[in-house]
Amino acid sequence: MRVRLINPNTTQSFTRTLQTIAQGFAADGTIVDATSPVMGTPSVESHVEEAVAAIGVIEQVVAGDKAGIDGYVICCFGDTGIAAAREVTNAPVVGMTEAAFFAASMLAASFSVITLPPRTRIHSERVLRETGMAERCARVRAIDIPVLDLADEDEAVEAAFLDEARRALAEDHSEAIVLGCAGLTHLVEPLSRHLGVPVIDGVMVGLKMVEGLVTLRLGTSKRSSFAYPPAKGLTGVFAHLLDGHKG
Amino acid sequence: MRVRLINPNTTQSFTRTLQTIAQGFAADGTIVDATSPVMGTPSVESHVEEAVAAIGVIEQVVAGDKAGIDGYVICCFGDTGIAAAREVTNAPVVGMTEAAFFAASMLAASFSVITLPPRTRIHSERVLRETGMAERCARVRAIDIPVLDLADEDEAVEAAFLDEARRALAEDHSEAIVLGCAGLTHLVEPLSRHLGVPVIDGVMVGLKMVEGLVTLRLGTSKRSSFAYPPAKGLTGVFAHLLDGHKG
Amino acid sequence: MRVRLINPNTTQSFTRTLQTIAQGFAADGTIVDATSPVMGTPSVESHVEEAVAAIGVIEQVVAGDKAGIDGYVICCFGDTGIAAAREVTNAPVVGMTEAAFFAASMLAASFSVITLPPRTRIHSERVLRETGMAERCARVRAIDIPVLDLADEDEAVEAAFLDEARRALAEDHSEAIVLGCAGLTHLVEPLSRHLGVPVIDGVMVGLKMVEGLVTLRLGTSKRSSFAYPPAKGLTGVFAHLLDGHKG
Amino acid sequence: MRVRLINPNTTQSFTRTLQTIAQGFAADGTIVDATSPVMGTPSVESHVEEAVAAIGVIEQVVAGDKAGIDGYVICCFGDTGIAAAREVTNAPVVGMTEAAFFAASMLAASFSVITLPPRTRIHSERVLRETGMAERCARVRAIDIPVLDLADEDEAVEAAFLDEARRALAEDHSEAIVLGCAGLTHLVEPLSRHLGVPVIDGVMVGLKMVEGLVTLRLGTSKRSSFAYPPAKGLTGVFAHLLDGHKG
Amino acid sequence: MRVRLINPNTTQSFTRTLQTIAQGFAADGTIVDATSPVMGTPSVESHVEEAVAAIGVIEQVVAGDKAGIDGYVICCFGDTGIAAAREVTNAPVVGMTEAAFFAASMLAASFSVITLPPRTRIHSERVLRETGMAERCARVRAIDIPVLDLADEDEAVEAAFLDEARRALAEDHSEAIVLGCAGLTHLVEPLSRHLGVPVIDGVMVGLKMVEGLVTLRLGTSKRSSFAYPPAKGLTGVFAHLLDGHKG
Amino acid sequence: MRVRLINPNTTQSFTRTLQTIAQGFAADGTIVDATSPVMGTPSVESHVEEAVAAIGVIEQVVAGDKAGIDGYVICCFGDTGIAAAREVTNAPVVGMTEAAFFAASMLAASFSVITLPPRTRIHSERVLRETGMAERCARVRAIDIPVLDLADEDEAVEAAFLDEARRALAEDHSEAIVLGCAGLTHLVEPLSRHLGVPVIDGVMVGLKMVEGLVTLRLGTSKRSSFAYPPAKGLTGVFAHLLDGHKG
Repeated sequence: MRVRLINPNTTQSFTRTLQTIAQGFAADGTIVDATSPVMGTPSVESHVEEAVAAIGVIEQVVAGDKAGIDGYVICCFGDTGIAAAREVTNAPVVGMTEAAFFAASMLAASFSVITLPPRTRIHSERVLRETGMAERCARVRAIDIPVLDLADEDEAVEAAFLDEARRALAEDHSEAIVLGCAGLTHLVEPLSRHLGVPVIDGVMVGLKMVEGLVTLRLGTSKRSSFAYPPAKGLTGVFAHLLDGHKG
Repeated sequence: MRVRLINPNTTQSFTRTLQTIAQGFAADGTIVDATSPVMGTPSVESHVEEAVAAIGVIEQVVAGDKAGIDGYVICCFGDTGIAAAREVTNAPVVGMTEAAFFAASMLAASFSVITLPPRTRIHSERVLRETGMAERCARVRAIDIPVLDLADEDEAVEAAFLDEARRALAEDHSEAIVLGCAGLTHLVEPLSRHLGVPVIDGVMVGLKMVEGLVTLRLGTSKRSSFAYPPAKGLTGVFAHLLDGHKG
Repeated sequence: MRVRLINPNTTQSFTRTLQTIAQGFAADGTIVDATSPVMGTPSVESHVEEAVAAIGVIEQVVAGDKAGIDGYVICCFGDTGIAAAREVTNAPVVGMTEAAFFAASMLAASFSVITLPPRTRIHSERVLRETGMAERCARVRAIDIPVLDLADEDEAVEAAFLDEARRALAEDHSEAIVLGCAGLTHLVEPLSRHLGVPVIDGVMVGLKMVEGLVTLRLGTSKRSSFAYPPAKGLTGVFAHLLDGHKG
Repeated sequence: MRVRLINPNTTQSFTRTLQTIAQGFAADGTIVDATSPVMGTPSVESHVEEAVAAIGVIEQVVAGDKAGIDGYVICCFGDTGIAAAREVTNAPVVGMTEAAFFAASMLAASFSVITLPPRTRIHSERVLRETGMAERCARVRAIDIPVLDLADEDEAVEAAFLDEARRALAEDHSEAIVLGCAGLTHLVEPLSRHLGVPVIDGVMVGLKMVEGLVTLRLGTSKRSSFAYPPAKGLTGVFAHLLDGHKG
Repeated sequence: MRVRLINPNTTQSFTRTLQTIAQGFAADGTIVDATSPVMGTPSVESHVEEAVAAIGVIEQVVAGDKAGIDGYVICCFGDTGIAAAREVTNAPVVGMTEAAFFAASMLAASFSVITLPPRTRIHSERVLRETGMAERCARVRAIDIPVLDLADEDEAVEAAFLDEARRALAEDHSEAIVLGCAGLTHLVEPLSRHLGVPVIDGVMVGLKMVEGLVTLRLGTSKRSSFAYPPAKGLTGVFAHLLDGHKG
Repeated sequence: MRVRLINPNTTQSFTRTLQTIAQGFAADGTIVDATSPVMGTPSVESHVEEAVAAIGVIEQVVAGDKAGIDGYVICCFGDTGIAAAREVTNAPVVGMTEAAFFAASMLAASFSVITLPPRTRIHSERVLRETGMAERCARVRAIDIPVLDLADEDEAVEAAFLDEARRALAEDHSEAIVLGCAGLTHLVEPLSRHLGVPVIDGVMVGLKMVEGLVTLRLGTSKRSSFAYPPAKGLTGVFAHLLDGHKG
């Protein structure tokens, strides 16, 4: 089984880390294939960047289907381009955000999200609403750190998350923490040790959910909403976006 | 006052029609400026095409701000790329879909949407949910006609809409009809005459709402969610997307 | 085009101010006609006063239709008597409250309402629920000032609104402010200057929305819910309430 | 204990019937006092009539408090003027509509409402939304009979309700029927016998709920939302509306 | 009329108190019959205990029907086993929790619940959601006292409730207090005296609501959801649970 | 890794089938351990049976924890006793119903449930509401077959499901089918082949989700709502229910 983890941004170092960590959690026989678009945005912290990154996600799914990928995880909080991704494949496509919310709701009565930077709170809220998870989320909290600084200052990042998570437990009556950004898998262990509650990284949960769906031979429904897009000519820089997709 | 109507698809004939009709409804002193992206998709009937078209919408708003545009209407049912559009300007940005829903809810206790083709029903439902209008909408109905056939077969299109609208009034207890696609302004008069209820074209309502907001000097809030996107290097075909935007 | 702004209370000085300010924002060719009932309540700060004022609103719409009015704005936070008003006319009727909420939701991801006095918070909440805007409103805040003191103590009022609005931005993650009372148009400029976010006065937004609907020849649906009321004899002080209405 | 049943319309014959039937269901020691306004509307079938009738409801509560009434039931589907009524008394005020919904939800998993005439469906929907009962109501159905014809054609009315109720059970998966109008107590026995499910008349349920609240010395909260209205001069025909109320 | 108050836990002293207090509020002619299971749990403070107590509730309803009981009140916050209880009888079954919520919503615009211990907050939230009352509840608050300590330390309990209730009024904009546990009827008088708002004990409200339903000959619908359970052999300790039930 | 599939009813043949099928889908290294209570009910088709079965579920989790089980799946549509089960373990507990809903929502824009018998529709609706999935479910459909007949008449059952599923696709605009009962895994292949959309069996999805959570070392939060139940003496037949549980 081959599962593609799509990093919607262009920061290759993050893609490589994703590959390494995810392979460690994958089932025997699962080949993890982490990729990212060649062109786009180094991080996704705004709606504009989300729009740009969505094109890269489509591109990676179309390419993945040609390469025989069996399932996809979108590795950006906000599940960038997920509806479009579902259109171009009949493999399952899981968003790290929805996966995290579903897992959290099976482990705890309520959870808090800790995302970053603050302006992206609205992206979390959109996914909460779209997935039906809004009522289970006690609060979307945000830390004021740019995404690209995550790599550099691990200790400060961990401390900031720990502080905010403690506030979440004390003030929100939360019983689990959802990490609101990809690339934070290394925080799961220390945070859950300090906090004593489940700390959830949607990327890894998404990987396991996709593995499960593939094993059960469950793929994206091609009836109506996520049917392959109609064959019309995209033009300009988009002319080849759908070349050779299955539909 | 200059109001830009953004046709998110690349079908120029539709853009020209939009320009002509909208100028007729504009206030004295409003210059209507209908535009469309040079590259992209000839119509928006899928999530993939919506993702592609969103890039064109961003491009047209960035260009519009440089050209001194005072307000924008996104002229595609689904309000393609509206959150991203709001980020790159402090002018007001109105979606034709939300405008239609708000108008319908001020004129009638409940309304039905008639959209096309059937696979796009989910786009209407997304906007209904995002705008809070889901409870006021009795039903999203769809006609099985591709968007690009709208121009050619006016009589068949009118007949199909009339039939579906009559079913909506009879079966849904609807009291108004929302046209679920741009480019249908010419149906407003015959349909409302035959049906005896308000028939709402979101493009024209959007134009009037934007004119109102501009007159009142109300623009997009730049606090947090729709703040200008952070200055990071987009790359590849997106490298110049934000060149010269105001933020 | 003639647009009637209905002040549901009997305070004539407020009606005159409304007339002057609104005419300044009206389109060329729009005649603003601000009116108020002869009998009723000097302000609307309770459900009893709202019930009393609703009769005056009906009276002003019936009279307006006879006088050739093309559209109506109900100028009281709470949209006093709006469903009844819609029944007695086929012109569009817009409430200042719904208009403010719709505008706010097109300009910002979330807004706070600042209303007064505190006991009327429930009126705002009712309109939020009825219009579907509850999720977009971060919080309904209230200032403890009686409505009739608004005129006298402009500086204190401005200071109180500014303080409360600052708290709204800091504590509610709001990105726009809705003024929760008519008669506060003069606060829009100073508040938006100090706060740097859109500050919305529903009266002026309502005026522009009605102008738009009239231009597009869109009126209240007379099918079922807002059909003209059945012709039965009202008696006593209400005997002449509907005299000569169109239905 | 004295309980006032307020018939918001001016049809005295209906008020007398109400008195007789309700006294039969009242507890030992409860004096039922059915009243109606002297002036107003002979029935409530529109929002205008609801606005007119609300004034009569306020009047009857103010008068009732002076006469030593201990609790009130508003006997019109739609709970005419209930928020205003609650403001002018510290006795409990129960609406027949909310009472019917609450009872239905304690007796059955879901219920259908059968109201009349069709244009008033929106009034039922408003109360369902305001009371939180919308999810428990499978459907609001309507019969096309004017309220004032209810008295004359008992057999036709019973047959119409029975037909519609049978459709409700078959099509809506309903498990109880709520009668959507006052004055239908006599239908409870034959309908429940024929249908084999609970048939609920909100007037009688409201009477029993008010008796219960009075026995437990529970009255309307006077804190904030339903505090007595501020002492300002109502004018004209409303000048004496609040004369001598307790607040 | 015989009304059974079912204490789902095995603490007999509490059952006896319930009997005494409730008989005092019962109508002339109502015989109150308070019972509790012989085996089970001394209090209900967890989901496990709720599952155990539900068996006892079923047992008491089956026995009650054989003994000629006319209606039931489930006297535990959370309405333990209420759906199952409704299946085994055609008498009305009222939960103290839903009764309290309905009463509170007829007396005040919003209410706060004060429950205990904190881990049971989720039980209150479940009933709020199931009954549609979530929007009317400003907040579920909890006191950190085990249920079984309620009897011993009356003064401390009263003080703790009074403190928490004062916070509710000040911070939640609540206008009524719902006591979130059975066995607190004695707090109603002192708390309402100190707070000046309605304080609601669901047991007594439930008693009065059941009396009303029985008087009106309204019982549980046996159509579909609450039909008598199918006749299959329960085994082991459950073998006799349904012996002789009516269905 | 050892995963226990708990069949809440006492029908051993079903438990054995579950064991065999699930082992076939389990990951290398996962030992599937299907169990059922010794005493209880042969199937769960009512709330009474659900209450009885919940005791068995608790018993099996307590025993499972002693036997070193790493994760649990509750294999009954309705997720019998899931909150109580979560209290007595810190391993993850997944309900087949929630698992099916979450999977369906990741594969399709909307799904229909086909459950049985009709009276259990309300159980599905409860889980839809509790999990936030109500909006994603187009409709809960039911087939009129008793659970215990499922084994005997495979062809009739398959035909009934196929018919109902076809109606779901045609009438509900559904894009996936959720099988609303355990023990139907064998229908997944033929139904999905005939229908061309995902057909989802919650048991197998639940198994894969639990495997994923265990791999990621994620277990039930023991903070507040699902903390181990307090140590109080259960009595009678329940005296040993919690013996030796971990808390």
